[in-house]
Amino acid sequence: MKYSIGIDIGGTNTEIGLVDETGQILLKTKFHTFEYLTSEKYIIKLSDEISKFFETIPLQKIEGIGIGAPMANHFTGFIEDAHNLPWHNNINIVKLLKNNFNTPIVLSNDANAAAIGEMVYGNAKDLDNFIVITLGTGVGAGIVINKKILLGASGYAGEIGHTTAIIEGRQCNCGRKGCLETYCSANGIIETAKELIEKNNDSLLHGIQNLSTIDIYNAAIKGDKVSNEVFNITGKILGYQLAQATLITSPSHIFIFGGVANAKDLILNPIRNSFYNNLLNVFKSSVKIELSGLPQGNAAILGAASLVL
Amino acid sequence: MKYSIGIDIGGTNTEIGLVDETGQILLKTKFHTFEYLTSEKYIIKLSDEISKFFETIPLQKIEGIGIGAPMANHFTGFIEDAHNLPWHNNINIVKLLKNNFNTPIVLSNDANAAAIGEMVYGNAKDLDNFIVITLGTGVGAGIVINKKILLGASGYAGEIGHTTAIIEGRQCNCGRKGCLETYCSANGIIETAKELIEKNNDSLLHGIQNLSTIDIYNAAIKGDKVSNEVFNITGKILGYQLAQATLITSPSHIFIFGGVANAKDLILNPIRNSFYNNLLNVFKSSVKIELSGLPQGNAAILGAASLVL
Repeated sequence: MKYSIGIDIGGTNTEIGLVDETGQILLKTKFHTFEYLTSEKYIIKLSDEISKFFETIPLQKIEGIGIGAPMANHFTGFIEDAHNLPWHNNINIVKLLKNNFNTPIVLSNDANAAAIGEMVYGNAKDLDNFIVITLGTGVGAGIVINKKILLGASGYAGEIGHTTAIIEGRQCNCGRKGCLETYCSANGIIETAKELIEKNNDSLLHGIQNLSTIDIYNAAIKGDKVSNEVFNITGKILGYQLAQATLITSPSHIFIFGGVANAKDLILNPIRNSFYNNLLNVFKSSVKIELSGLPQGNAAILGAASLVL
Repeated sequence: MKYSIGIDIGGTNTEIGLVDETGQILLKTKFHTFEYLTSEKYIIKLSDEISKFFETIPLQKIEGIGIGAPMANHFTGFIEDAHNLPWHNNINIVKLLKNNFNTPIVLSNDANAAAIGEMVYGNAKDLDNFIVITLGTGVGAGIVINKKILLGASGYAGEIGHTTAIIEGRQCNCGRKGCLETYCSANGIIETAKELIEKNNDSLLHGIQNLSTIDIYNAAIKGDKVSNEVFNITGKILGYQLAQATLITSPSHIFIFGGVANAKDLILNPIRNSFYNNLLNVFKSSVKIELSGLPQGNAAILGAASLVL
């Protein structure tokens, strides 16, 4: 049996898992990314957490460590300009961890990790050309062309979260305006909800402190109109942008991945409506939009772990 | 020496050339595509013109026939839904020509043909990841990833001309609104000029019958403000859209190809300004926008011919 360690670095949480080649997660831990305000403190915490795994399994028994992170460059090992992470300097995370662990370490964009995970453990096992869209603290795309991740010349291909969804729209952390992720990330969705709540007095969302996408989902399935409208608006914007990306890359499938995907049909239906309404005819019969096939809760770790397996 | 026949099917002209492996064009002819209103009549005319070449060189001496056409599907041999061609039925042009010529026939999107031409004869000989943007009757993109044309699941990847440049903008032949090619194709540019002429009485373009992009170029280099503004508007829209496509595919170079590219800096400068102003920081140092390196006048034929060589 082969084992690897998968690390998913998100703006909110960092999750670490010990995974076997069948996709079983044998050990798992997580901590809050946002509590570590400098990259130095973050690397110390991350290394500590990884080290604990080696009390259970010796370092020599693992194939390596796979890391999925926003704005991660597979070519250089750097995380650069990651607007959703608490520190803002560029760090060579592969080199920094190599100082502590003598094992292969592979870094990739979190969305690329999700796409490889989808190929290895999910719904894309037999597909050549597909896209995995990650909806979380940010919005990313892992684009697979002829069974290979599209990295591009810079290593940063797939930054769909920063395509412009609304001209002169919401301010994005990247410094530009109207980026897709200001509307379709978890924070973007909450922002949309807050805008709608202000205009509607009778929503179940009124008065909820620290509103989350889970609150919006729970209200939506109880029939709350505002919450349903939040998913409709989000899906409409995302579906439109996916139609644009399809014109460029022509996938056979687009998989929706991440916390927001838990809303299933509530988010999937408006995405599909908007997508097919805005798609050029010639593509309409060739593209399907589905939910990720990776198991809930462990998908990102599996994706990261699959980078080395 | 190896020879091939390159055919460039455009909405205005069909050009046919006999090309050797060094890129020399030994014979060349053209006719008006738009005069052949049915695909049957068009295939007869095209076959007649090709046949004339075999008075000079025997069929056995050529490697094959390469065809670049809008909405051409490399996988199936079909031209489908080609809004810029005079007939509107889907035709299997490879099969129809195979009835007349017993030689390998390769069909590709005209933009893909241009991109392969750029790799074989132009400025992209040593590049792995680049895009060729064709500006003509339509607007297309030939996207090269790791030295291979991106076809996607449908064979229609690279349809950048139908990405939405202006929400609820000009009516496109595809049935949708605001497509990039309604602004940046030759017709789109002329439309922009007409709109500006209406509002400005002192342009050199006033009173020109059947206004062409060449008229606009000639007026622009004489200092005509309206004509310069036409190129500025066109470049601004195109540069913006190229920044979006770069987020998805991350090329190292984007080459501008086609008749409009003859305007050189007049179109290139506003494209670059808009492109870099709208690009996510992390890509800014990794992408260059240049003119195609294929020789003026023969570029599309060379691209088509390179499909078989």
